[in-house]
Amino acid sequence: MNPYQLILKKRNGGVLSKDEIREFVLGFAQGTGVEDYQMAAWLMAVWYQGMNVEELSALTQAMIDSGDQLDLSCLPGVKVDKHSTGGVGDTTTLILAPLAAAAGATVAKMSGRGLGHTGGTLDKLESVPGLRTGLTGDEFIAQVKKIGCAVISQTGNLVPADGKMYALRDVTATVDSIPLIASSVMSKKLACGADCILLDVKYGRGAFMDTLDNARELARRMVDLGNHMGRRVRAVISDMDQPLGTMIGNALEVREAIEILRNERPGSALETVSVELAAHLLEMAKICPNLEKSRERVRELLVSGAGLKKLAEMFAAQGGDARVCDDVSYLPQAPKTVEVKAPRSGYVTSIHAQKIGLASTALGAGRVKKSDPIDPAVGIIMERRVGDAIEAGQPLAILHTQDKPEAIEEATRLILESIVIGDEKTAPRKLIEEVVE
Amino acid sequence: MNPYQLILKKRNGGVLSKDEIREFVLGFAQGTGVEDYQMAAWLMAVWYQGMNVEELSALTQAMIDSGDQLDLSCLPGVKVDKHSTGGVGDTTTLILAPLAAAAGATVAKMSGRGLGHTGGTLDKLESVPGLRTGLTGDEFIAQVKKIGCAVISQTGNLVPADGKMYALRDVTATVDSIPLIASSVMSKKLACGADCILLDVKYGRGAFMDTLDNARELARRMVDLGNHMGRRVRAVISDMDQPLGTMIGNALEVREAIEILRNERPGSALETVSVELAAHLLEMAKICPNLEKSRERVRELLVSGAGLKKLAEMFAAQGGDARVCDDVSYLPQAPKTVEVKAPRSGYVTSIHAQKIGLASTALGAGRVKKSDPIDPAVGIIMERRVGDAIEAGQPLAILHTQDKPEAIEEATRLILESIVIGDEKTAPRKLIEEVVE
Repeated sequence: MNPYQLILKKRNGGVLSKDEIREFVLGFAQGTGVEDYQMAAWLMAVWYQGMNVEELSALTQAMIDSGDQLDLSCLPGVKVDKHSTGGVGDTTTLILAPLAAAAGATVAKMSGRGLGHTGGTLDKLESVPGLRTGLTGDEFIAQVKKIGCAVISQTGNLVPADGKMYALRDVTATVDSIPLIASSVMSKKLACGADCILLDVKYGRGAFMDTLDNARELARRMVDLGNHMGRRVRAVISDMDQPLGTMIGNALEVREAIEILRNERPGSALETVSVELAAHLLEMAKICPNLEKSRERVRELLVSGAGLKKLAEMFAAQGGDARVCDDVSYLPQAPKTVEVKAPRSGYVTSIHAQKIGLASTALGAGRVKKSDPIDPAVGIIMERRVGDAIEAGQPLAILHTQDKPEAIEEATRLILESIVIGDEKTAPRKLIEEVVE
Repeated sequence: MNPYQLILKKRNGGVLSKDEIREFVLGFAQGTGVEDYQMAAWLMAVWYQGMNVEELSALTQAMIDSGDQLDLSCLPGVKVDKHSTGGVGDTTTLILAPLAAAAGATVAKMSGRGLGHTGGTLDKLESVPGLRTGLTGDEFIAQVKKIGCAVISQTGNLVPADGKMYALRDVTATVDSIPLIASSVMSKKLACGADCILLDVKYGRGAFMDTLDNARELARRMVDLGNHMGRRVRAVISDMDQPLGTMIGNALEVREAIEILRNERPGSALETVSVELAAHLLEMAKICPNLEKSRERVRELLVSGAGLKKLAEMFAAQGGDARVCDDVSYLPQAPKTVEVKAPRSGYVTSIHAQKIGLASTALGAGRVKKSDPIDPAVGIIMERRVGDAIEAGQPLAILHTQDKPEAIEEATRLILESIVIGDEKTAPRKLIEEVVE
């Protein structure tokens, strides 16, 4: 394998063979013969030329083979996994994981942390006092065997090629390539060993994909790739133009998940999407015969409190204080609340999710760079969604914050900037735009 | 300057500002803030997106400013320079430099070495016993002041950005980008300080540019760039489908140059092109009022022996044995000659210049990699050109070689492979296809 020849071939629009891609990726990941500047040039050529499904599968498989893979074969039942491309107030995992487990699916899930305007499930989970996400492989398997679900941070040396390639893409303007995103996401999901993978591809101003077309293309590529590699994969395309949940911030998002599992927020956007995602998982896992039956089953488990019970079990199994499920005041609480008031009366016509996420980050709930600490207690509760009416002076949002005037000012500015109030009532976007399979 | 933003802007087809390009190139050349993988990604983006003349000028100026520049202002007369994009049997410098100097132009020229199938003027010069090409800047200036010409290897730290960028292009498949080639060639020529620059852009199977269209585009870009940067620049597009000279190999090419300056090869292709290039230089330098007068003047100097005398002066000034000009047997001579015979009778319809160059390299006259030693004595004398008749068994070429059967076999194979003999007489291509200014 001559790295130069491979770069040249891709640059000129050629199709690389499985072996060529494999040697190139492993030569880079293992530092044997492919230099970072060669990978950078190749990634740029891929940005322009794309990859077909065979190339994408070879790339993804080589990335997986650069490290360890999780072996879930010792676990009973159908192993299901879900991945969201990231958003604001996007707490579906904490709702659908216990619901799916309560229905009999096996949820052995690895999650990530937040960065920039987006939150991360691990950060949210760790706001539960005592809860550990850094389980060993054995602890992880044992917990899933016992209670049917676990959500932990990455264990072992999974897909090191992705980390190395992503670090390069991040500084060479090759992040926004659909095949490269697809291989990055799918390599990690496939290495985690689930039988069924549900992808929640967000689109809108708080999502990685801003347009529906891009989200659709990414969903299509990931589903085709997963199927080509022999897994059951489905994607939903869901709205992330305004925040999905009412609450943004780590402990606040755990609180909203608990409130939903207590059936205290029926019909809310976050509940609706979470139930729908859980239903897809049950149908994919063939636990229920069709989507309608799956939805019914998920709703039963929600209303009966079985989902909440499973969440409490999971919190306890991971060392967390399960009392939070009965009394959310056991969660960290910010010392101060500040209202952000509507400057005029009318209808909320638009909420810019990314700016809301940045407002939450400004309060300390998120990270600007990976090494930043976060404050689990702070965040924002949105008092209105798109389509809602408001009077001047009523709160649009409530900041949960430390007593830091500059942060409060910045968050307030961002929230006011992000919300448009008009005279006409606007219909919000569909929560789930379409399903790709 | 954020390198990421610049890569992104170029990738998306944007136009970079002068300052952006300058900071990016200097940041890379000086190792301050632009990593090699970022330059590699940017070069690939430039390969796809190209550059306009302002961007190209900014790039070229920044490359020049990464190092020293030659100051020729202390020299009298109009300083002229010539650059060939490289070829086989392309010995024009050794003919036109003394002719132009004899006509009153100032020729302070830096040259390069051969690589692959192409020869280099420095290697040819160094086959003259005793001749040095590694003059100091002061020696160089003093020699040009005294005799009007010098041809030496690069002195000082000229355009280090080019060396660094070229090394990266060479391993990331971004060599064949017209703007990048143009900036690489022109930065070096402009840093050498000549008033008039004549570019000899070769096209054909022994040239860097294989097609006339590509050669035309490169010539156009380089002329526009040079003019935009305030120099008199002209390009000729000349044939390099078959070797230009009859002799290929270092001492052999010096011998052919001497024979031409002795007026022993009137009307030969190498003489014709060399005289034409010298005439362009004289016209550009306004030493003669037009091209026709320039041609007459050059021919006079050739016929009178003034060119040969100037070549001998230059050889002597650089420590070389000037007796070679009177008696070429003072040049290194190979111990053995081997005829490559025509396998059939007919007309030579095609000679593949690159393969002839590789045959010469196989004999030891050229380098496969930069660090390879070369043998000054060996090479090839071509006995036919395209359009010539030949009888089966007559020599097509004569190898001048060491007694190395494998090298002889390889060179013979390449020469036979490179020459097509047909039944119909074919007209050769025009030696100079067109002039771009």
